[in-house]
Amino acid sequence: MPDTTLLVLDAEPLPRLGKLTGRVRVEHADASTLADRLSAADVLLVWDFSSHAVRHAWPGAGPRPRWVHTASAGVDHLMCPELAASDTVVTNARGVFDQPIAEYVAALVLAMAKDLPRTWDLQRRREWRHRESQRVAGTRACVVGSGPIGRAIVKSLKALGITTALVGRTPRTGVHGPAELDRLMARADWVVSAAPLTEATHGMFDARRFGMMQPSARFINVGRGQLVVEDALVEALSKRWIAGAALDVFEHEPLGPDSPLWEVAGLIVSPHMSGDTIGWRDELGTQFVELFERWEAGKPLANVVDKKRGYVSGH
Amino acid sequence: MPDTTLLVLDAEPLPRLGKLTGRVRVEHADASTLADRLSAADVLLVWDFSSHAVRHAWPGAGPRPRWVHTASAGVDHLMCPELAASDTVVTNARGVFDQPIAEYVAALVLAMAKDLPRTWDLQRRREWRHRESQRVAGTRACVVGSGPIGRAIVKSLKALGITTALVGRTPRTGVHGPAELDRLMARADWVVSAAPLTEATHGMFDARRFGMMQPSARFINVGRGQLVVEDALVEALSKRWIAGAALDVFEHEPLGPDSPLWEVAGLIVSPHMSGDTIGWRDELGTQFVELFERWEAGKPLANVVDKKRGYVSGH
Repeated sequence: MPDTTLLVLDAEPLPRLGKLTGRVRVEHADASTLADRLSAADVLLVWDFSSHAVRHAWPGAGPRPRWVHTASAGVDHLMCPELAASDTVVTNARGVFDQPIAEYVAALVLAMAKDLPRTWDLQRRREWRHRESQRVAGTRACVVGSGPIGRAIVKSLKALGITTALVGRTPRTGVHGPAELDRLMARADWVVSAAPLTEATHGMFDARRFGMMQPSARFINVGRGQLVVEDALVEALSKRWIAGAALDVFEHEPLGPDSPLWEVAGLIVSPHMSGDTIGWRDELGTQFVELFERWEAGKPLANVVDKKRGYVSGH
Repeated sequence: MPDTTLLVLDAEPLPRLGKLTGRVRVEHADASTLADRLSAADVLLVWDFSSHAVRHAWPGAGPRPRWVHTASAGVDHLMCPELAASDTVVTNARGVFDQPIAEYVAALVLAMAKDLPRTWDLQRRREWRHRESQRVAGTRACVVGSGPIGRAIVKSLKALGITTALVGRTPRTGVHGPAELDRLMARADWVVSAAPLTEATHGMFDARRFGMMQPSARFINVGRGQLVVEDALVEALSKRWIAGAALDVFEHEPLGPDSPLWEVAGLIVSPHMSGDTIGWRDELGTQFVELFERWEAGKPLANVVDKKRGYVSGH
């Protein structure tokens, strides 16, 4: 019998785990059983990244897993002071979502510049209405969040001829610090939110900041819903403080059919899918198996989250 | 009084012509008066590029303008054997539309890869439905038409990480000849039509060629409507020979409200706007004024169309 117990918090089948057959005892938990089963687990794999069960189960009674991996870029759904203070190592899915999310942001920028939502609307109404659209080359973007996702977004926007500024927590070469955010947002045609959700970033896109943006500017959030004060965004759109917005993440997900956000003029709503390209679950599974093999061999893990900061730091 | 008469075939006001005040006698014509006024014109500016009036007025009686400029990239709407055989020089708006059309094609490619049309549809129905989308990096495009527009499209798709093949009339470095089209189309994820409309290209995208494409492939036409056999495209879409298509140009424009094309599943319809970014009329006006100043000074014109071929050649 394998010595190691891997507990998987999952909502749906997990590919690639078959590779570990015979090398690990795999057990499963859901939100209701996690707290009970945690003390018997050496490793916890948070496959269901929409669940907040880990946060609620910590610290709990008995031994805790020595390693927790989440199949997501953000760790806000599992992090809590007790876990942060513990010896447990937390890793994330850094790398899997960078390129897909960067492409998704480019898709939104171009769709808004070329007025595609209106094109679809007119097509549905069988109306031929010629419009002038915008060039994206030569416009200016402010990307907030200087991790691998933010950096991939910068790269893809630059490839379209867009002048970009990247804003992160710590100023360094190629990254502006938080003190410059207001100035950069005020002159941007595109403001892209790709920051991790932490105490410092919670609600950072608020009425004051939307009020600062150019009336022709657009806002895109592919980070976490709680980065944005949704009411303030709705107000900014309805009062034409800004020209448009696209949200792929929301304070409460999934968005219910009664949410007023579905029908805000100038707002594109998508169901938290920006990073999820065909094969993503496979990639996440492969990534975990690779990390597990390092852990099993006693090698240092990659993608280790700075638990105080709430993201993988140092890049 | 100025010696030179400039006749403008126009449907709407033309910016930037004020710069020529006092240097040229400007007269105006529409489709019904063009034939009568043509004999008094030294230069004809075809500002209304949707009109076929020039073709119908040629050769006509009396002297013809020595120079005809069209504020469009294509010259198919004005070219006829008599004009082609004459001494009249024809110039076009080469250069103005390259970058905008390239961005528009990138917008369509990304919108289709990221399933944005369905996202809009679901938003309208207030449905949260997560889907997996496609990565564009690593996919393969075949761009047909090796003029400046086709080359700009290649550049913008390459910037997205797409592997591209360019097909033109004459094989040369970086350009495949027509003999390779079938092979390249058969392996492409994206087939982009940006060719000029000539005898050789009329109806080139037909049932045989759509039948050759991959079931997962998409077709985009930003060239001329007549390059495509529309019925064949509709059949290819309805039988799932290909996964999707976007048409910005049509055999008959504007598309009437009764056209069946508006409602073909998997087809994006836009009103011939791919190259028309804010300020485009200004750019077209400025370009004509610059050409006029060269002509006035006896310098050789730029953007001279090879009238036999139907486009500016030699690049």
